[in-house]
Amino acid sequence: MKAKDFAGVYPYLVSPVDSRGEVMAEVLGRLVEYLIQKGVHGLTPLGSTGEFAYLTWDQRRRVVEVVLEASKGRVPVVAGVAHTSIREAARQAREMEKMGVDGILAVMDTYFPVPPEGVTAYFRAVAEAVSCPVVLYTNPSFSGTNLSPEVIESLLSTPNILYLKDASANTGNLLTLMNRVGDRLKIFSASAHIPLAVMMLGGVGWMSGPACVIPGQSVRLYELTRRRQWDEAIALQKRLWNINRIFQKYALAPCIKACLEIQGFPVGPPIPPLQPLKGAALQEIEGVLKSLQALP
Amino acid sequence: MKAKDFAGVYPYLVSPVDSRGEVMAEVLGRLVEYLIQKGVHGLTPLGSTGEFAYLTWDQRRRVVEVVLEASKGRVPVVAGVAHTSIREAARQAREMEKMGVDGILAVMDTYFPVPPEGVTAYFRAVAEAVSCPVVLYTNPSFSGTNLSPEVIESLLSTPNILYLKDASANTGNLLTLMNRVGDRLKIFSASAHIPLAVMMLGGVGWMSGPACVIPGQSVRLYELTRRRQWDEAIALQKRLWNINRIFQKYALAPCIKACLEIQGFPVGPPIPPLQPLKGAALQEIEGVLKSLQALP
Amino acid sequence: MKAKDFAGVYPYLVSPVDSRGEVMAEVLGRLVEYLIQKGVHGLTPLGSTGEFAYLTWDQRRRVVEVVLEASKGRVPVVAGVAHTSIREAARQAREMEKMGVDGILAVMDTYFPVPPEGVTAYFRAVAEAVSCPVVLYTNPSFSGTNLSPEVIESLLSTPNILYLKDASANTGNLLTLMNRVGDRLKIFSASAHIPLAVMMLGGVGWMSGPACVIPGQSVRLYELTRRRQWDEAIALQKRLWNINRIFQKYALAPCIKACLEIQGFPVGPPIPPLQPLKGAALQEIEGVLKSLQALP
Amino acid sequence: MKAKDFAGVYPYLVSPVDSRGEVMAEVLGRLVEYLIQKGVHGLTPLGSTGEFAYLTWDQRRRVVEVVLEASKGRVPVVAGVAHTSIREAARQAREMEKMGVDGILAVMDTYFPVPPEGVTAYFRAVAEAVSCPVVLYTNPSFSGTNLSPEVIESLLSTPNILYLKDASANTGNLLTLMNRVGDRLKIFSASAHIPLAVMMLGGVGWMSGPACVIPGQSVRLYELTRRRQWDEAIALQKRLWNINRIFQKYALAPCIKACLEIQGFPVGPPIPPLQPLKGAALQEIEGVLKSLQALP
Repeated sequence: MKAKDFAGVYPYLVSPVDSRGEVMAEVLGRLVEYLIQKGVHGLTPLGSTGEFAYLTWDQRRRVVEVVLEASKGRVPVVAGVAHTSIREAARQAREMEKMGVDGILAVMDTYFPVPPEGVTAYFRAVAEAVSCPVVLYTNPSFSGTNLSPEVIESLLSTPNILYLKDASANTGNLLTLMNRVGDRLKIFSASAHIPLAVMMLGGVGWMSGPACVIPGQSVRLYELTRRRQWDEAIALQKRLWNINRIFQKYALAPCIKACLEIQGFPVGPPIPPLQPLKGAALQEIEGVLKSLQALP
Repeated sequence: MKAKDFAGVYPYLVSPVDSRGEVMAEVLGRLVEYLIQKGVHGLTPLGSTGEFAYLTWDQRRRVVEVVLEASKGRVPVVAGVAHTSIREAARQAREMEKMGVDGILAVMDTYFPVPPEGVTAYFRAVAEAVSCPVVLYTNPSFSGTNLSPEVIESLLSTPNILYLKDASANTGNLLTLMNRVGDRLKIFSASAHIPLAVMMLGGVGWMSGPACVIPGQSVRLYELTRRRQWDEAIALQKRLWNINRIFQKYALAPCIKACLEIQGFPVGPPIPPLQPLKGAALQEIEGVLKSLQALP
Repeated sequence: MKAKDFAGVYPYLVSPVDSRGEVMAEVLGRLVEYLIQKGVHGLTPLGSTGEFAYLTWDQRRRVVEVVLEASKGRVPVVAGVAHTSIREAARQAREMEKMGVDGILAVMDTYFPVPPEGVTAYFRAVAEAVSCPVVLYTNPSFSGTNLSPEVIESLLSTPNILYLKDASANTGNLLTLMNRVGDRLKIFSASAHIPLAVMMLGGVGWMSGPACVIPGQSVRLYELTRRRQWDEAIALQKRLWNINRIFQKYALAPCIKACLEIQGFPVGPPIPPLQPLKGAALQEIEGVLKSLQALP
Repeated sequence: MKAKDFAGVYPYLVSPVDSRGEVMAEVLGRLVEYLIQKGVHGLTPLGSTGEFAYLTWDQRRRVVEVVLEASKGRVPVVAGVAHTSIREAARQAREMEKMGVDGILAVMDTYFPVPPEGVTAYFRAVAEAVSCPVVLYTNPSFSGTNLSPEVIESLLSTPNILYLKDASANTGNLLTLMNRVGDRLKIFSASAHIPLAVMMLGGVGWMSGPACVIPGQSVRLYELTRRRQWDEAIALQKRLWNINRIFQKYALAPCIKACLEIQGFPVGPPIPPLQPLKGAALQEIEGVLKSLQALP
């Protein structure tokens, strides 16, 4: 397959699962349609916000299948692949590519600490298992992966490792990396970074949960940055940041599922033992959505 | 089934898996036979040392199957169950009990932080899925579970939650818990604790990787503690500690697989991306085994 | 005294101390003169880079005295005050004001964890001990202070707490705070943030070690941000970031003292047990200085 | 001076300081007298419990002076010395020895991370500044010192570094060290360890805050361990542990000062910004003291 160029706003999709463990295809399909109508540039099922870590392989397969069917090739679908073992992660990536995804978001789960040569071997094996572009994903606070600058640079000899999505919240380290690798690796911001700051430093877009909830305004922010209209972008970013703030304050998946429920997408509660938000948290979230004109 | 009483030395078994992902039944069965001959009181497949976090469900099933076949009911088999989601963990526990295990070692994997009510719900659901005894397992350094004293106490209303295996390395916290719960919860030491210290404080035994490698001497130490021959026990414990020390210095699974290879059990390397030990590490391990007369 | 408005580039000065513990007044005075010639907007003795934590009170007094004498009132001098105890910190602040400083950079040292009411009491007492403006300083990686948004907001009822200098490296948290407190608290960036990003979000300047080494280019960057010439500022910032990168890679004080030695300011080694940089580290630093035309 | 042999129960003394910053000599002297009457084997002013980190040098001097005067040479006095800089720490140690202390408890404060050669240089310099025995003190949770086994071993070439007091709570690491250094370094337990466990492994005593509050029972426990009456010692230890538990639950210095106030020693509140215990915490502490017959 011919690789597409990934850039712009890629919402991290939630994974709606009912109490019997079934993926709720209707609401997920409707969310996908809505996001595409709002102009998002791509879709990312099975990121952190997608609760990938709480799903079985069959559930993961089904989520991707529903997203592919609903998006009908209109935007790239970049699906998350995550495991502790190399063999299983490579197998998942291969199956996802056969299903038709346009790219792989590669996450490394950890239990024991893994030395750098093991981390390198993991990501390289996932990339070599497919021919589509691969996005390296690093999120030290959850997955524990030590994706150091040295490891990232050593991975650049693998031709289809083309993107990085960094959720470390340390924008300075991101600039250090950008200065080292130049255009060879394209950077997506995560919701822990300020997307505008990453775009200003040379990023190509962002993959994040909040974009599910404010897709239109996210696309508007992206366009301002592309046109280098920095002052307008700054003013919009400062307002939109409130939604990133509540994602950080409350747990990612519970928060975005709560937002979507409020917006009329009955995606259900997070997967147990994750707990749904309640009371004051819901009220704060609703207040933020209202202040951003993001209520239906 | 009638619940057996668990006490004594329970080696954490390794999971030998070949490069095609197949569980190597012959060597695992031979290891089980050897440990039973040496007098161990039970067997624990799929603990941390068993690399459970790196195995698919099919591989986990197969490991337990081989251990049950080889042990032929001579000692209790307490198998590890671990997942992030409640639904999947409960399903695994049910299947394990159907296969014939005598107890479940319940581990909670985490990705996002889980609030205390979620942790309680997880362990309770696993226990309620089975009728056999359940061992709570807490290992903050790897699984990230916050199994606080309050959560543990709230779980005691579930009748088949009978044991705790704590790998926190903080013996004082263990004594604090023992003073609170008394005999309602029986405590197994982990390899991060000094087994003798835990026995002295009222523990009933230990579940640990090192017991795979020095089963006979572990049983001897256990017997000394049961007879309250503390001075002899102290002298033996100080010597045996060297093997716990190298487990802590090197990664658990790679270290024990290396020891077993040296002892004539070709269990293979750890599961990639875990890396096998090499060079100086292997020499140090061999030196420790020699000093404990644990070479074949 | 009439409070001056602090804004712009405030280099963190090093503290040159000889092997007998004497502050080396000549080289410190010469550095101050050089920085003022290069256009810096203020001076900050006794920040982290100034090794305040390694100096006795007499040494701290002397450093401030030398800086005040050399600067002759041409730019504001904002001196660091730090202790674990409220009584001693307030005493230091009072003495510094008597000596003639224009502002206090208030740091809270910690040994035991301190609850929020203790943190609030500390900073409030330091501010109430003086009439000049106070800059709150938060550096979780070194001083361990938990200066939460709630604590910061509660401190705003103290009228002379006017500035914040945050060294957390989490730019998103800084934006969250800015959105909450508006203009009531003016923000200085630290070297762990990308100064340009903080300026773009509404910051008033930066206090940092690197500004000692590239004062002229720092002032140029500041001017570009004031004129909102973002594209030129971005290009300059990306180049200048290399010097922040080496500060993060190597220890702050050892690194800046090494830079200044290379630039012809014999400020000596860091205070033992801090260790001077050697060999490859010195070469890398010299390379970065050269690439920025910052060699004499 | 001739070095005494340190062994047994060494209470960590509190530092009573009034609101004007004056050391309250009367109550401190009375506490010293009481502890000696109860049979403690030595006294340790200026440990963590002694809030050394919150005291000026003049206050530290005065605390030691009062303790020396009150103890009148009946038991060894081992005083804490702590600073970030080598020069100042060595100076403090020298002055303390001149004042008449029998040993130095050497603590290394940190602000920046210090490489191993710097840590070694610090402790060696403190020891070389005096002729009396030195106790290395390691408390990773507060002082941040990385006193690794390698650093400790390298320090053994300094003849008067004779003792270690480890507050890491990891008893296994302590046994690892004991197995390496043998009798060359004598080990004191801290309150984070279970004193009985450390004695059983070969320790010579304990230095801890709780011993201030239950001095008689602590001495009794020590005597049981010396006579290797392990079963009686175990029963006593399990009861006494409750007081270590509340020290860990509540902050060290606030807790022990509260205990002493209840017991009739008006030592005052902890040094601000440390906060005194209140309400339910005081009630819990009083309950524990009562259960141990430690009320007046």
